Amino acid sequence: MANEVVLLDTWVSMFGMRVRIALAEKGVQYEYKEENLRDKSPILLQMNPIHKKIPVLIHNGKPVCESAIIVQYIDEVWNDKAPFMPSDPYERAQARFWVDYIDKKVYDTWRKMWLSKGEEHEEGKKELISIFKTLEETLGDKPFYGGATFGFLDIGLIPFYSWFYAYETYGNFKMEVECPKLMAWAKRCLEKESVSKTLPDQMKVYDFVVSMKKSLGLD
Amino acid sequence: MANEVVLLDTWVSMFGMRVRIALAEKGVQYEYKEENLRDKSPILLQMNPIHKKIPVLIHNGKPVCESAIIVQYIDEVWNDKAPFMPSDPYERAQARFWVDYIDKKVYDTWRKMWLSKGEEHEEGKKELISIFKTLEETLGDKPFYGGATFGFLDIGLIPFYSWFYAYETYGNFKMEVECPKLMAWAKRCLEKESVSKTLPDQMKVYDFVVSMKKSLGLD
Repeated sequence: MANEVVLLDTWVSMFGMRVRIALAEKGVQYEYKEENLRDKSPILLQMNPIHKKIPVLIHNGKPVCESAIIVQYIDEVWNDKAPFMPSDPYERAQARFWVDYIDKKVYDTWRKMWLSKGEEHEEGKKELISIFKTLEETLGDKPFYGGATFGFLDIGLIPFYSWFYAYETYGNFKMEVECPKLMAWAKRCLEKESVSKTLPDQMKVYDFVVSMKKSLGLD
Repeated sequence: MANEVVLLDTWVSMFGMRVRIALAEKGVQYEYKEENLRDKSPILLQMNPIHKKIPVLIHNGKPVCESAIIVQYIDEVWNDKAPFMPSDPYERAQARFWVDYIDKKVYDTWRKMWLSKGEEHEEGKKELISIFKTLEETLGDKPFYGGATFGFLDIGLIPFYSWFYAYETYGNFKMEVECPKLMAWAKRCLEKESVSKTLPDQMKVYDFVVSMKKSLGLD
């Protein structure tokens, strides 16, 4: 079977980065198509008519949507190397639980902090720090969430690292102070080429976030 | 290995019903513990400290949370019969996508319709019908979402059938008129004992919904 792989994505998306890291881990060649989310391409609307969101992985013409689902798909199709999922069903359920937790919590809480002032801002900041502390606790003393190896939950979380400077600057806190073990984990992840070559510079993300807020008239 | 299985659940929860159907399909014996969500038990708070929600499956003392994750866990642990997941990775990704779609859309849209009046109510109603039409379209002409057999997406969706009378009554529409093929699918599912013995009577759910609205002071 031919393996024609196309990724519809946006450079700054942590959800897109998950897919790029997963493809790099598996050594899959693909065509990257940068989407402009203010003027979505006909192919994005056709391939993800339900959510109209990136990332979309198009494998031999057929779309797979939602980053956590795409990463599992990649793991199941290119199953000859670097398995992402733990072999134990209980560990698999836990990895899925925490990726789902990230999806339900991080982005919305960050937006709450980012787009509000006063009490709501402070509440969002506290919640965001508490989410990362919970995730740090879940890591425990393991080098990676996948144990000795980089796995599904590592892939699910590490892209957010590229947003940390934005979180810290808008929230006026330091991840290094709040979550030193999580930062040590992030640095271990960054030793992997699949991660270091995928994650954009934190300052570039921050500049994007600043310009986004300006464009929302919320400077 | 001993298989001590306990389910923390609430009878009216469609998410809990998913787990009950999955356990019945696999023929797993378990202890059912009804939770009072207004006075959560210490065991629920201990077993799901993150979300504090039912259902929680406790397998040999270890908790698994979030219904879609629990159903996959059950499928992977009791893998000797009635597989829920399609064998093809693409079909698996699609089944996961649609269960995720249900989780993101149905309950919130129903609440919007249920708890509002006027324009917002009408908007919620239109959205809810459109969600079920989308799901009907996805079924196509297959007897089940799993194709010839009852699978992950069937388990993910069929519990909502027990709420249909409440949806219809508060929304003033008829599922039989809006989604006749989906209704025919629901009736096929109900021929399965795992479903018919799990789903509560639609009138009983409706009565619960009425009393819930009263207790919210929103009669």
